[in-house]
Amino acid sequence: MIASTPDPPYYAVIFSSLKEDDSVGYAEMAQRMVHLATQQPGFIGVESARQDIGITVSYWKDRKSIRQWKQHIDHQLAQKLGRERWYSHYKTRICKVEFDYEFNRLL
Amino acid sequence: MIASTPDPPYYAVIFSSLKEDDSVGYAEMAQRMVHLATQQPGFIGVESARQDIGITVSYWKDRKSIRQWKQHIDHQLAQKLGRERWYSHYKTRICKVEFDYEFNRLL
Repeated sequence: MIASTPDPPYYAVIFSSLKEDDSVGYAEMAQRMVHLATQQPGFIGVESARQDIGITVSYWKDRKSIRQWKQHIDHQLAQKLGRERWYSHYKTRICKVEFDYEFNRLL
Repeated sequence: MIASTPDPPYYAVIFSSLKEDDSVGYAEMAQRMVHLATQQPGFIGVESARQDIGITVSYWKDRKSIRQWKQHIDHQLAQKLGRERWYSHYKTRICKVEFDYEFNRLL
């Protein structure tokens, strides 16, 4: 689903990643982290797809809520395991959404 | 591949989309548009993945280059066909990348 987001400005975290072939435990952890993220203050929504590359975009109220989520103790452990086991390369980009527009055939 | 991008600030366009089942001509047009985008002034890079949802993030030098690309005559036609034929729902978010960081096992 395309995330429902408020009128700008709000924030987006673009997490782009390449996985190792061996990914025991990855799917469970990824699912757990998305669930945990949805419970954090300032969380707005998330969109995710993986093909050759994985792209997860999460939307947040402000940079403070993004910083708090990055420092969440369970998320810290997931990030550590991500670097040790699952990802060969990732890049995280913190962005201010300045403008958006939408097309919906059903509206 | 994860896009090579300069030190912030730069711009990201997050294009999130849901496709119709019938997508005759879509793959060719998508490929053509990515190729054409790479030739535009201010283009930096692009990342794309599709699963249930499609997410394409393109990176640009500034908002002017994003605006010019949106108004490119061939891109205008592709956008029109996108609304008429291929997409049931899409959302475009124009973002200023304020901060980024990276992990690379090989570095």
